[in-house]
Amino acid sequence: MKTVRAGLIGISGYAGMELARILASHPSMELTMACSRGEAGKKLGDFYPFLRGMPGSDIEICVYDIKKAASACDIAFLAVPAGTAMQMAPELLEAGVKVVDLSADFRLHDVAVYEQWYRQKHTASGYLADAVYGLPELYAASISRAKLVANPGCYPTASILGAYAAIKHGIIHTDNIVIDAKSGASGAGRKAAVPTLFCEVSDNFRPYGAPTHRHTPEIEQELSLIAGRDMIVSFVPHLVPMKRGILAAIYANLTDKKQDLASIHALFAETWSMSPWIRVLPAGTLPETANVRGSMYCDIGICVDSRAGRLIIFSAIDNLCRGASGQAIADANLMFGLPVNCGMADMAPLP
Amino acid sequence: MKTVRAGLIGISGYAGMELARILASHPSMELTMACSRGEAGKKLGDFYPFLRGMPGSDIEICVYDIKKAASACDIAFLAVPAGTAMQMAPELLEAGVKVVDLSADFRLHDVAVYEQWYRQKHTASGYLADAVYGLPELYAASISRAKLVANPGCYPTASILGAYAAIKHGIIHTDNIVIDAKSGASGAGRKAAVPTLFCEVSDNFRPYGAPTHRHTPEIEQELSLIAGRDMIVSFVPHLVPMKRGILAAIYANLTDKKQDLASIHALFAETWSMSPWIRVLPAGTLPETANVRGSMYCDIGICVDSRAGRLIIFSAIDNLCRGASGQAIADANLMFGLPVNCGMADMAPLP
Amino acid sequence: MKTVRAGLIGISGYAGMELARILASHPSMELTMACSRGEAGKKLGDFYPFLRGMPGSDIEICVYDIKKAASACDIAFLAVPAGTAMQMAPELLEAGVKVVDLSADFRLHDVAVYEQWYRQKHTASGYLADAVYGLPELYAASISRAKLVANPGCYPTASILGAYAAIKHGIIHTDNIVIDAKSGASGAGRKAAVPTLFCEVSDNFRPYGAPTHRHTPEIEQELSLIAGRDMIVSFVPHLVPMKRGILAAIYANLTDKKQDLASIHALFAETWSMSPWIRVLPAGTLPETANVRGSMYCDIGICVDSRAGRLIIFSAIDNLCRGASGQAIADANLMFGLPVNCGMADMAPLP
Amino acid sequence: MKTVRAGLIGISGYAGMELARILASHPSMELTMACSRGEAGKKLGDFYPFLRGMPGSDIEICVYDIKKAASACDIAFLAVPAGTAMQMAPELLEAGVKVVDLSADFRLHDVAVYEQWYRQKHTASGYLADAVYGLPELYAASISRAKLVANPGCYPTASILGAYAAIKHGIIHTDNIVIDAKSGASGAGRKAAVPTLFCEVSDNFRPYGAPTHRHTPEIEQELSLIAGRDMIVSFVPHLVPMKRGILAAIYANLTDKKQDLASIHALFAETWSMSPWIRVLPAGTLPETANVRGSMYCDIGICVDSRAGRLIIFSAIDNLCRGASGQAIADANLMFGLPVNCGMADMAPLP
Repeated sequence: MKTVRAGLIGISGYAGMELARILASHPSMELTMACSRGEAGKKLGDFYPFLRGMPGSDIEICVYDIKKAASACDIAFLAVPAGTAMQMAPELLEAGVKVVDLSADFRLHDVAVYEQWYRQKHTASGYLADAVYGLPELYAASISRAKLVANPGCYPTASILGAYAAIKHGIIHTDNIVIDAKSGASGAGRKAAVPTLFCEVSDNFRPYGAPTHRHTPEIEQELSLIAGRDMIVSFVPHLVPMKRGILAAIYANLTDKKQDLASIHALFAETWSMSPWIRVLPAGTLPETANVRGSMYCDIGICVDSRAGRLIIFSAIDNLCRGASGQAIADANLMFGLPVNCGMADMAPLP
Repeated sequence: MKTVRAGLIGISGYAGMELARILASHPSMELTMACSRGEAGKKLGDFYPFLRGMPGSDIEICVYDIKKAASACDIAFLAVPAGTAMQMAPELLEAGVKVVDLSADFRLHDVAVYEQWYRQKHTASGYLADAVYGLPELYAASISRAKLVANPGCYPTASILGAYAAIKHGIIHTDNIVIDAKSGASGAGRKAAVPTLFCEVSDNFRPYGAPTHRHTPEIEQELSLIAGRDMIVSFVPHLVPMKRGILAAIYANLTDKKQDLASIHALFAETWSMSPWIRVLPAGTLPETANVRGSMYCDIGICVDSRAGRLIIFSAIDNLCRGASGQAIADANLMFGLPVNCGMADMAPLP
Repeated sequence: MKTVRAGLIGISGYAGMELARILASHPSMELTMACSRGEAGKKLGDFYPFLRGMPGSDIEICVYDIKKAASACDIAFLAVPAGTAMQMAPELLEAGVKVVDLSADFRLHDVAVYEQWYRQKHTASGYLADAVYGLPELYAASISRAKLVANPGCYPTASILGAYAAIKHGIIHTDNIVIDAKSGASGAGRKAAVPTLFCEVSDNFRPYGAPTHRHTPEIEQELSLIAGRDMIVSFVPHLVPMKRGILAAIYANLTDKKQDLASIHALFAETWSMSPWIRVLPAGTLPETANVRGSMYCDIGICVDSRAGRLIIFSAIDNLCRGASGQAIADANLMFGLPVNCGMADMAPLP
Repeated sequence: MKTVRAGLIGISGYAGMELARILASHPSMELTMACSRGEAGKKLGDFYPFLRGMPGSDIEICVYDIKKAASACDIAFLAVPAGTAMQMAPELLEAGVKVVDLSADFRLHDVAVYEQWYRQKHTASGYLADAVYGLPELYAASISRAKLVANPGCYPTASILGAYAAIKHGIIHTDNIVIDAKSGASGAGRKAAVPTLFCEVSDNFRPYGAPTHRHTPEIEQELSLIAGRDMIVSFVPHLVPMKRGILAAIYANLTDKKQDLASIHALFAETWSMSPWIRVLPAGTLPETANVRGSMYCDIGICVDSRAGRLIIFSAIDNLCRGASGQAIADANLMFGLPVNCGMADMAPLP
């Protein structure tokens, strides 16, 4: 197998950092280009001292340039803001470079929805039809054939994987769903900003962005596709004083209030029995983010509140690995015929 | 005004610690007895070095004894487990000592509900009728006249204060309410236990106790009284890697889906305009736990998800001060004719 | 007693925040002016939601102006960067406004030392002779008479109070002293910056600034005055993943290697017996930062390493209260004839 | 190469947890026995949910039994308390099972020193002569031939690796050394105890154990061997509110006060040029624990305080991986002729 040459556009954020980490020990991909306007000229291992001594740490960070990308890369990972990605993706694709876009630019199939929630014009809407939503459990076959993959958002990954089995099998009403999600601070990015300073986040807990967080339409798009009808959900994210991890609590009314935990658990377990990264926890066990830290696992716990006729699903992922960079690598693995878990860290370092 | 002599039964937990802290600077109460079987014989300031040099730090911790309590105390704060409090309260009341019980033993009016959720026999059910639920905003007058006050739980305090205005004014349906609550680790107590070790809690987030957490019937009892009809809620608590603070997100369907944020906000603001500890935040501002740290404040933020026809209320308190010991002192203040906020820390030390 | 009118120049940092917090409940001082270029026009309680409802929260933040300061303030607290303070202090003093400067501009008596370590010209060196170093335990009388007080740095406060007794009584050699100090992240300020983001600080520990941290000459100046001879120390600060607190470990060789813990402890205890904020812990007990959180206490623990002939002194303070804003208020109290501890929070909220 | 069958005696602590984690992805070792009295009967993946789905997670935890160990294991890792290990090691060795002991029982060559510091009789002192101190950089050849390896303590690992180059090359005086070390809370173990509860550790910092911490004689033994003369050091550990990581600051007087940073740095760099796990950081860069998280790296930064004639060395490791379980695996790799880094995680997951 020829080594896949990978370009990393945007290294200064946490998604870029995580991509660099995974690529450094990937047996079949090699980091051949690392781009950042602000850090150009530095060696990657000097910018990220934790990479010192690892493969790729000697690479010199450069300013993004399509010609260089075209000659140096088989695939480009775009870890740049929404709006920038839609400018870069077309020229990379034209040049024959496959693209995994970690921004939101190609996730929403309906350009009007994109423009409404992201409040900017979509300048590459012609590429939306061919972009594949990069959730391997749902779209592995399409991802394998794709040139452009839209890497899912972190909250949508946790929410969709959590809700999938219940919606697919019709055990919950689809019109009264609440998703109360909580994320570690790395989800807020690595930009210098007062609200994400240590002293503002530590020993504090707060909601934000409700009810207009941009991950809402992405969640609704995918859940609607599963349900086969349009769905609206209430989605509320919160900031947890931790570095990594997302836990989503999904509340929904049972279609049959008599359904018990054992039967619903069996349904979930069966649904995911062939998906090694989805761990349906034993009935009575609830997930925690630490158990999926740094990994591709999605731990799902379920709880039946029979007094209220409600199913409560808890879904935990690592926001940077499964919710961003690890998933991007998994997609790239599929795009190049590699095993989906190639090069992936297996499990969380605990404590 | 004569100084009120206060006894503190159970000092080794976080509620006892917080009571000792507040009493140390209370201008009209004096700590005259501090009981703990395990720590008897030590000086309070040696057991809690942060109290060294403060009033009360020289008191010697003793084993609880009803005779000593009867002669030394005008009021006793019970910071002991449910089950123990119901044994102590009757003899204290008989001896003429007023009681604020921080356990759950006297919170639920219906003894059957207590026995079902707490899985133990109630041996002092004759006292339930006279026990007053110690939430000052709702029951100040009754608290003033009470001999026995049942201090509310931490989650119920946040939940009831958050939901009150919306239920009272009938703007939400009462049959489809979800309360997704998050608490700092001090809520789990100061018992030596692996799950609350630093390395298990830090950089981790997890739900627990769902759907049978014991605060559920307490929340339902009080919300039902406000609503004037029986209510069932789904209540899910989570553990946040922080020391103090609770934030509850309350999800409910609007009775009139056309109601807008401005009108609902006005209703909340008006409801609480005479309650200095309830801060209804400006429309668009959401609460965070750090802003209420160590104080009696309850910060409430509201959010209308008009797409889903849903009202989302966020309510933040300090679990140890407002949710336990501060509220107990406020109740005691009322019971002795002192200003309700006498001796209370005013605001959070930030950061 | 007439209420002292206090101006706060520079509110957006943690020192300004802490000053606002203490002033809000100070019985004899009133915040009459709060200045910040970036936040001008906002109400203080909107900028700092934790202050909402407290005295002073309705004040409108304004741009600093000497005329306004002259008419509105009896005293000005300068919570501005070194370099800016030396510009403001002279005009305030000329206008009859007393000044407590929280920056380093007036701490060093020798202008050459200032210019060497701070790498800028001192433009108000004429005021150095009259500036008093605001450590109440050492200079209370001078502070009482001062118009301009140079509020000590946080590390120097912990280091000087810790080392004082040992140097004063000649029990350690003054030529081989190491001060290994550790601080919470609030010491790094509230400026938006990547290195103080939550994800960079949390679960991490690192030294910084060695061996040229600017608090070095300040420590040396004061220790030399105590010793009566010039001293050089090795001073190394570290960043701890916590919000508040400093702990300094001071290592020195004993002049008499036979001295035992009991006798040294007695000496420390006697030295500080009349200083209510200095708590010399029992022999065998070491300090921790949580016990002094939000307070003016300095907890000192001592340890004799008799194998090595070395005295190790541990000194813990709250960097924002004792190490900055609380100390500034204490100084202002003295300058206006108030009790030194007037308006001061008494003790740490634990946990 | 035949797969090495590994037994893990003592799985309930953090060292056992980390061993289980590393073994789960080790290509040439297989976990064949996991022992814990308290957890016997559970599957490893149920006890440690983060291991679910990984190799070894289906193994059933059992009570330790020498017969079972003899038949199931080529090597046993002892993650049990000092005192217990000395009972198990002899019978395992007799049965032909190699042993890596993570306790302190076989680290000190002088039985009298052991008995003085650990305050218990050594019942297997006959094995001390053949036990090899398992620091690969110093003793790789001996480890390769050993049957019994004494895995170094966490603080000693950081201290010895940090000080090695300076002592070896005689650039510091060996009679005036201070080691001020700081560790994350996992170093305190996974025992249920109040002082390591989240609420006691978080937002707090404190020294402990000085001046009689049991790692002192271990550090002195190894530094003395390097120096070729008996050395005494002052060693003080502190508890940092983080999960993993140790940073040691080593203070020593330069033999030649004129030596500059560049020359000393060159000496360090040269000393470790062939040791891939020792990263001597560029002059002017100081280490931080996050950069070595979960890895075998030891990051060393040096600083010359020329005013004081002092060398300050900072040494950072991960206390659980390099300071315990990773090092134990590295030793086992050597003992079975595997590459020393076989199966080892390469780098820290950041943030």
